[in-house]
Parts: sequence; C-alpha cells; structure tokens
Amino acid sequence: MADENIIYVGKKPTMNYVLAVVTQFNNDANRITIKARGKAISKAVDIAEITKRKFLQTVTYEKITLNTETLEGERGTSNVSSIEITLAK
Amino acid sequence: MADENIIYVGKKPTMNYVLAVVTQFNNDANRITIKARGKAISKAVDIAEITKRKFLQTVTYEKITLNTETLEGERGTSNVSSIEITLAK
Repeated sequence: MADENIIYVGKKPTMNYVLAVVTQFNNDANRITIKARGKAISKAVDIAEITKRKFLQTVTYEKITLNTETLEGERGTSNVSSIEITLAK
Repeated sequence: MADENIIYVGKKPTMNYVLAVVTQFNNDANRITIKARGKAISKAVDIAEITKRKFLQTVTYEKITLNTETLEGERGTSNVSSIEITLAK
C-alpha cells in the first residue's frame, strides 16, 4: 500500500500538493508518483523540485515518464500530454 | 556537432519548435535536447510528444532531467523549475 501513492495535480496551489507529498513520505510512503496533464505539467515539476530542494533532500527521481492521453469530449477527442514523476526515498 | 543540438522553448507556437526538432533530426542530428523553464515546461512536453507520435516514431526518450535554476532579477533572486528532454534516434 505504501508504495502505491499517487498525487494528481489540479488547480489547487502548488504548496498544497507539496504538503501532500511531504506528509505521505512522513507517513511511511517509500515512493510517490505525481501525475499531471496539459498546463498542470509545469506545476508538477515545481511540486517535485520544491519537495526535493526545500523539504526532503534525500528523495530522488526514480522515474520520469511522458505520455499522450486521448480525452473524449462533447466535440470529439483531443490529445493532451501528461507526465508522471516518481519520487523515492 | 550533430550530437550537440539544443532547442530552447520560448513563446513561439508549439509547432514551430516541433518543426525545428524534426528538421534537425532530418539533417543528421542523432540527439536533440529540448530545454524549458517555468510555464514553458508543459510546452516542452507537448513538443517532445508531438515529435514522437506524429513525425518520428522511432525516436526515444534518452533522458529527462528536472532541475531548479536561480534567476537574478532587479528585485533579488527567484527560483524557477526547468526540464531537459533528450530525444535520440
């Protein structure tokens, strides 16, 4: 369970997500994956970098994956880029 | 020389950068690094994904690096996240 932590980045302030990541690591998570799509990708990178530099210097990037997801909308489908950043301690 | 291609992502439309990447690969580059900071990070991921999915399916992600850069401004320093995406064929 402790290895299955996923945080989805949305419209909340960056520091809310940083706090969530730090809290989960302090609650015995060994690995956390930050997922974001579209314009939230920049925020996901901020979250990962702030976590590493300001809070948990021993955490490392285990894996960074880029992908394209297809969204079904009322007017057909559209593609959006996504990122998955896995941090491990 | 052909291994030292760097593309800096700025305010131009995404497809301008995609075209630059595709052109450089077609001009015998074996490896291209896309660099971006701050909000341009999302655009860098779009550029890489569009290049891979629509134009050069044989290209792979060789390396993805996240970092924090310190910018010197008139009102002191500020930190900004950055990404480097290296595509190789």
